[in-house]
Amino acid sequence: MLNHAAVDRVFHALGDPTRRLILERLSRGPASVSALAKPLDITLAAVVQHLQVLEQSGIVRTEKIGRVRSCHVRPDGLRVAERWIAERRAIWERRFDRLGEILGEPQHGSPTGRKNKS
Amino acid sequence: MLNHAAVDRVFHALGDPTRRLILERLSRGPASVSALAKPLDITLAAVVQHLQVLEQSGIVRTEKIGRVRSCHVRPDGLRVAERWIAERRAIWERRFDRLGEILGEPQHGSPTGRKNKS
Repeated sequence: MLNHAAVDRVFHALGDPTRRLILERLSRGPASVSALAKPLDITLAAVVQHLQVLEQSGIVRTEKIGRVRSCHVRPDGLRVAERWIAERRAIWERRFDRLGEILGEPQHGSPTGRKNKS
Repeated sequence: MLNHAAVDRVFHALGDPTRRLILERLSRGPASVSALAKPLDITLAAVVQHLQVLEQSGIVRTEKIGRVRSCHVRPDGLRVAERWIAERRAIWERRFDRLGEILGEPQHGSPTGRKNKS
């Protein structure tokens, strides 16, 4: 069972386009707050706020080395969102297949790799 | 390559807790607008607005049958979000593994099922 608050935090974090751009930048490697701010053309304060949301959701971690705060992605941080989506899609596809059976229609090949006996 | 606008629409849609509650309700089967509004304790107008966002993102479809608008989930609608997350996580885990190699640390077993030769 997924933790409801964790699901809320991660989807809130991913729901903002600027935060997703920060994640794209961090996909190429760790970066400082000012390096993140530059291409986004937003204030350092705004970047810090976005980073706080990303940290609280567990997708990013930051560490202060000397006077510079370095930001990194956490690969496991996306797992909550991944599971929530996969669980919903599994439920929806089961419903969809059952509906097909009820209507007597042939089943489509599934993108999740389920095999149909033919 | 994922369509940037489609990624924006789907994460915007999933970023709101009320819209995720609507999806949970629709996971149990199609529902009318008023049936969706009742447990959420929000106005019909608010539900309609949320449904518009969900429809534009491709996660929900609605159809008017007589005087009732019936709402359904679309299993394929989550695929954009699923792919965006899976792609990011794959990139991040590769980076993480390479870092481990550089540091000479043993690799962790991966949750995505990659096999480590030991």
